[in-house]
Amino acid sequence: MIAQNPGKHKVCPYMGRIYMDIITNTLARIKPVNADLLQQAQIRLDNKTKPPGSLGRLEEFARRLVAISGSNDPDLSKKVIFTFAADHGIVEEGVSLYPSEVTRQMVLNFLAGGAGVNVLARHAGAEVRVVDVGVDHDFENVPGLIHRKVARGTRNFAKGPAMTRQEMLAAVQVGIELADQCKAEGVGLVGTGEMGIGNTTPSSAMIAAISGKTVADVTHRGTGIDDATLLNKIRVIKAGLEINKPDGSDPLDVLTKVGGLEIAAIAGLVLGCAANSLPVVIDGFISTAGALIASELHPHVREYIFAAHKSVEIGHYFMLERIGTEPILDLNLRLGEGTGAALAMTLIEAGVKILKEMATFEQAGVTH
Amino acid sequence: MIAQNPGKHKVCPYMGRIYMDIITNTLARIKPVNADLLQQAQIRLDNKTKPPGSLGRLEEFARRLVAISGSNDPDLSKKVIFTFAADHGIVEEGVSLYPSEVTRQMVLNFLAGGAGVNVLARHAGAEVRVVDVGVDHDFENVPGLIHRKVARGTRNFAKGPAMTRQEMLAAVQVGIELADQCKAEGVGLVGTGEMGIGNTTPSSAMIAAISGKTVADVTHRGTGIDDATLLNKIRVIKAGLEINKPDGSDPLDVLTKVGGLEIAAIAGLVLGCAANSLPVVIDGFISTAGALIASELHPHVREYIFAAHKSVEIGHYFMLERIGTEPILDLNLRLGEGTGAALAMTLIEAGVKILKEMATFEQAGVTH
Repeated sequence: MIAQNPGKHKVCPYMGRIYMDIITNTLARIKPVNADLLQQAQIRLDNKTKPPGSLGRLEEFARRLVAISGSNDPDLSKKVIFTFAADHGIVEEGVSLYPSEVTRQMVLNFLAGGAGVNVLARHAGAEVRVVDVGVDHDFENVPGLIHRKVARGTRNFAKGPAMTRQEMLAAVQVGIELADQCKAEGVGLVGTGEMGIGNTTPSSAMIAAISGKTVADVTHRGTGIDDATLLNKIRVIKAGLEINKPDGSDPLDVLTKVGGLEIAAIAGLVLGCAANSLPVVIDGFISTAGALIASELHPHVREYIFAAHKSVEIGHYFMLERIGTEPILDLNLRLGEGTGAALAMTLIEAGVKILKEMATFEQAGVTH
Repeated sequence: MIAQNPGKHKVCPYMGRIYMDIITNTLARIKPVNADLLQQAQIRLDNKTKPPGSLGRLEEFARRLVAISGSNDPDLSKKVIFTFAADHGIVEEGVSLYPSEVTRQMVLNFLAGGAGVNVLARHAGAEVRVVDVGVDHDFENVPGLIHRKVARGTRNFAKGPAMTRQEMLAAVQVGIELADQCKAEGVGLVGTGEMGIGNTTPSSAMIAAISGKTVADVTHRGTGIDDATLLNKIRVIKAGLEINKPDGSDPLDVLTKVGGLEIAAIAGLVLGCAANSLPVVIDGFISTAGALIASELHPHVREYIFAAHKSVEIGHYFMLERIGTEPILDLNLRLGEGTGAALAMTLIEAGVKILKEMATFEQAGVTH
């Protein structure tokens, strides 16, 4: 745990030390959620005109939103999904069906409102914020894009570390700062998403390094690769773990060596949400890899996390179990971008409305 | 199958014959959904900016809505959930935690907009229509209530048939007519719901009779009864099946002898939706019992059904399997009313928006 052993991380450059301080300070701000409010919210739910507990997980969402926000009347009128985009040097090993330029093209699609996450976020009443944290392209004067590029993609982790420690820390900081900004704006619910051709490969590498499971156990077909490409992907990940030897007990070491810039930003966003008492809905496989890093860094982070859905990717459920969270949906989604987070937001908001809008037995004159 | 063997049902009273004709005519109107449109919709989905199939069940919802409605541009602006209310004579056997008067009280709660289904339907942009098809109370001049009472509740099926055949047919007809009316109004998506203290008991009896499974295998705790009450509930259902000897191969016989008026209305609504090419979202355990009757009567009914969620009730999944449909949500819901249907509607509509609003590869200039 970093907060307890900051000396473990030997960050030489001056900027690296500043970034590290920001993470350490963020970790120090994370507190357990308010257990009294959790219980009080359940008592209120039990007075609504329904058998106790009969709205199942909607009741869980409602009481957790109260406990996380510290308000008996959680305000979800502002909901934001962050879609972090970055490229991956590992793509040169032939691990993906799509070329890296699709990352850039999809960023423009997000900004034009035509991608899956745009459609589903509109449906959920959420805003999509697109962040360039590491796309291998210089976006100039593109309206709406949040420019926070740390590097033009990672390096090929089959040949050496994906990032320098300083790059990783800078990307984590991007996420933390965006969470701080959400708090300042009065956002009530945050979602994560990502776009990065090749990014199931670092995610699988990260979960293998942290869990100790075999690479084959946590590596799947991403956007739909065939058997031969899957075997190659497993080989590449094994090579990357072999050459980089990430320390599974040091989440930031794993993130640096075999992770991705968008994954680091998601880790930062999740940390920042926990530090700001903001509920955060994590999307699918890649988002969960980022959330896993955050969760490994501090034991109370998980109390702020909602897992949107169970991805088709086989390593996903291992990560959710390790974080200690149950997925909300199981719709065979494997798109990423924040699409699952958008759908889950509508269900979380439904739970909060149950708490806020349903009549009590007394109000409705119903025997109980 | 009734349409093929109408002579099997000996309905003596004149009215009974008219009702039976309505069911027979409705069954004759049910056609398979358009397989060409199903395929065309998938081709359109495959041109959207995402890996093929990566939006999983959202894509299923979209292509099925196209095939069911016969329109490439399904209009879901009007969505209606029917909450059918009725009482149950079996309650005198002590099978429920709540007294029968709660059915009446909850009808007033629905009309006042304070119940769970009201909150979740508002969230989904759906209208709740409350139908008295068999409440043991005379509602007079209650604004908003749809008065279609067939009887003041069923009789105690532990002592004899729950309904006369004529009552059953009249209740089925209520559902059919409401579906016809939805078609005329341009409703794009219909949901089922119910309120009837004691109604998990007839539902379990029906599934036991139709599936041949033991009563204990399909009987659970309803609104939350304890072990002793559960044992009593199982005993009562066994007694009811013993005395009435419903013919498991004749769904309307099962419905008459051990069913309920709201369950019959739901069966009619589902049949009517299939006959009118309207997609219908069935809620939980009791709604599925109604849908099962409809599905047993005609092999193509299932193509119009969306199962909202997997209920906590243990008999539920057997019914869904028999119908041949996969539940959309699994949120430990067990309230009924149409609450699960409302939540599922938001996901089905999300799927349709993907088809209608997402950019194609060509439109977005994305390589594929």
